[in-house]
Amino acid sequence: MDYQAFFIHSLSHLKQEGRYRIFIDLERSCGKFPHAVHHTEAGPEEILLWCGNDYLGLGQHPKILEAMTTMLAKTGAGAGGTRNISGTTHSHVMLEKELADFHQKESALIFTSGYVANETTLATLAHFLPNCLILSDEKNHASIIHGIRNSRAEKKIFKHNDVSALEAHLKSVDRSRPKLVVFESVYSMDGDISPIKEMAELAKAYNALTFLDEVHGIGLYGERGAGVAEHLGVADQIDIIQGTFGKAVGLIGGYITGKAALVDFVRSHAPGFIFTTSLPPAICEGVRASLNIIQNHPEMRHHLHSVSSYLKQKLRAQGLPVMESTSHIVPLLVGDAKLCKHLSDELLKNYKIYVQPINYPTVAKGQERLRFTPSALHTKAMVDDLVKALAEIWQAFKAIAA
Amino acid sequence: MDYQAFFIHSLSHLKQEGRYRIFIDLERSCGKFPHAVHHTEAGPEEILLWCGNDYLGLGQHPKILEAMTTMLAKTGAGAGGTRNISGTTHSHVMLEKELADFHQKESALIFTSGYVANETTLATLAHFLPNCLILSDEKNHASIIHGIRNSRAEKKIFKHNDVSALEAHLKSVDRSRPKLVVFESVYSMDGDISPIKEMAELAKAYNALTFLDEVHGIGLYGERGAGVAEHLGVADQIDIIQGTFGKAVGLIGGYITGKAALVDFVRSHAPGFIFTTSLPPAICEGVRASLNIIQNHPEMRHHLHSVSSYLKQKLRAQGLPVMESTSHIVPLLVGDAKLCKHLSDELLKNYKIYVQPINYPTVAKGQERLRFTPSALHTKAMVDDLVKALAEIWQAFKAIAA
Ligand SMILES: Cc1ncc(COP(=O)(O)O)c(C=O)c1O
Ligand SMILES: Cc1ncc(COP(=O)(O)O)c(C=O)c1O
Repeated sequence: MDYQAFFIHSLSHLKQEGRYRIFIDLERSCGKFPHAVHHTEAGPEEILLWCGNDYLGLGQHPKILEAMTTMLAKTGAGAGGTRNISGTTHSHVMLEKELADFHQKESALIFTSGYVANETTLATLAHFLPNCLILSDEKNHASIIHGIRNSRAEKKIFKHNDVSALEAHLKSVDRSRPKLVVFESVYSMDGDISPIKEMAELAKAYNALTFLDEVHGIGLYGERGAGVAEHLGVADQIDIIQGTFGKAVGLIGGYITGKAALVDFVRSHAPGFIFTTSLPPAICEGVRASLNIIQNHPEMRHHLHSVSSYLKQKLRAQGLPVMESTSHIVPLLVGDAKLCKHLSDELLKNYKIYVQPINYPTVAKGQERLRFTPSALHTKAMVDDLVKALAEIWQAFKAIAA
Repeated sequence: MDYQAFFIHSLSHLKQEGRYRIFIDLERSCGKFPHAVHHTEAGPEEILLWCGNDYLGLGQHPKILEAMTTMLAKTGAGAGGTRNISGTTHSHVMLEKELADFHQKESALIFTSGYVANETTLATLAHFLPNCLILSDEKNHASIIHGIRNSRAEKKIFKHNDVSALEAHLKSVDRSRPKLVVFESVYSMDGDISPIKEMAELAKAYNALTFLDEVHGIGLYGERGAGVAEHLGVADQIDIIQGTFGKAVGLIGGYITGKAALVDFVRSHAPGFIFTTSLPPAICEGVRASLNIIQNHPEMRHHLHSVSSYLKQKLRAQGLPVMESTSHIVPLLVGDAKLCKHLSDELLKNYKIYVQPINYPTVAKGQERLRFTPSALHTKAMVDDLVKALAEIWQAFKAIAA
């Protein structure tokens, strides 16, 4: 085995397929978001971000930064241990209480990321519940897929957002068998929203637990910003609501909320929770400040939604292939990895607009796309510029291709 | 299936076995480490930490806090995206360069934790290397075990730190088959150090890749603090060195370093790297400041080692069952979960000394222990107090048990 040759060969294969990822080197600047600086070989240049997940622009909010700075000065940089071995700070305790309250659940548990929250919670529950069957939406996120896989429990994948497909599976198994239905509220690659109410009702009828990933719903839907389940008034029908601090909350970390016994069980058994240094207290304090803003400033999410609608409408008016999205996310179907990268490169080079191409394996081959994520700080003027640029590039490309 | 009953029953089982974990609610205070405040029902009280992983006390270092505070004010709270989708900041790029230099490797890659660095790197390499065989030390950390398991590759577990056991396995397989030897430098539960040089030579002779977890070595060993491999002058013999920012570095996050093609391969394929929000730039800047201090202040680790030796010597002099540790970690064998918890409770209640009991599954049943982790800010006077308290409690317990 020549390891070096193996890695080099495999990387060149990715490059040939147009799937080799080049990360662009950014620097944000407080007060200027969604503008940022792009560090290039030729020096720094200002660009406009159209593909971030800081949906409300809270990453630069003075109250959050103040809460973090105060905590840093008071208690220091890191937590200094795993949750069990000296790494539970007062900030963790308070934040878990507030998260439970946010979702109107008995209990909450913090993880180092939304990825880890999904992976280790699902792996743990499906592993320990005797003979558990997992029912998982076919478009679920990689962190969910890996959690399910790592549990080694039997799984059935059901057609995306398809309530009757789910029912067919539920019907086919013994009522007494433990079952876990796993789905997301907002599917971030397509921008569609799942039928949470119907799924929850069905799961209940067949005595299955429900696990809902609200990663792209938190901060953006619901009266208090607690997600799509809150918006639909069905949060109490979901057993486990999972979320992240990495998107609209503006920081990093993840969590689950649910009944006290279930959450305590995960706390006691999940390796990705137990065997890792806990989040820094300053991060927890930033999250607490952020949740406070989210709950008290619905106007931020309202603005985001209006910009998003405006963007969809303008793209459609230009005849550009905007996908059917029922959420704030605006994907534009390209359908080819190299073309997708080409469009993204052109936008960046000639218009200083940054949107990352989304290629396989994040989406299926043939489903490559550009995915625009408006934030509460994007304006209609920015939308106008974006759509104008896209129309020009698209025109130019069609002219070449013709 | 009655889910609620299942969780409640399972938790009460843990309680009966004395394995139910109660996290103590702490608050550190800059300038006072290793002292901290313990929040109790009766109010806050000051305690002395003897079980943290902030080995050098860098969590409260003014230069690190300053670097973080400056970055917060400049660029904000979170990174705002995954590494590929707008979440690579200039701080990530710089930190990866510095980590490669720190370990004298071509390349480095940052993860959200040391746990994720281990889990996803091992799962990815062992999955993609065709027919890979993993050879793993039996005492490897949970994050390593899960990474191996999740790869689904064939594995052979060899006797702890046993070079000839490793050789027997290596001999038994085809030379051309991809092989990955996985071990740690400092085993943090026993405090022993692995024969890195011998393992690396053997791996090389049989054409196996080596993966070394230096989580408890970084900052504490080697001329520049780059770990035990540096101390032994064999860092260049190891293919992948893995580390964390959560222990001596004083923050949170993890990384790997190695040849450019290998690291780029992991960057391109590891789900736990790709599908998650990246570390906040302020954390990266704190780490950069910390690595700078670690490289330029060997006196901190020298002091830690002298306190550790002194503690071992005093415990031995008292006839207390200190385990054979060749590192800075000082474990005291108790051998019973309930007794272990009792001793820890007594120390906290009567002496305001906090050391968490270490029970199954972190260590095997019958191997329960108290594990003391001196830091660069512990003093010999603190050691004297600790040993005095331990001797008293031990005496009192013996008197009851007799
Ligand atoms: C649906 C979904 N779930 C989970 C995650 C992981 O969350 P985090 O970034 O906090 O790891 C993401 C994105 O990263 C996501 O899109
Ligand atoms: C040996 C070892 N490896 C990896 C880890 C995980 O590192 P982190 O805390 O950064 O997740 C730990 C401790 O948590 C550890 O002790």
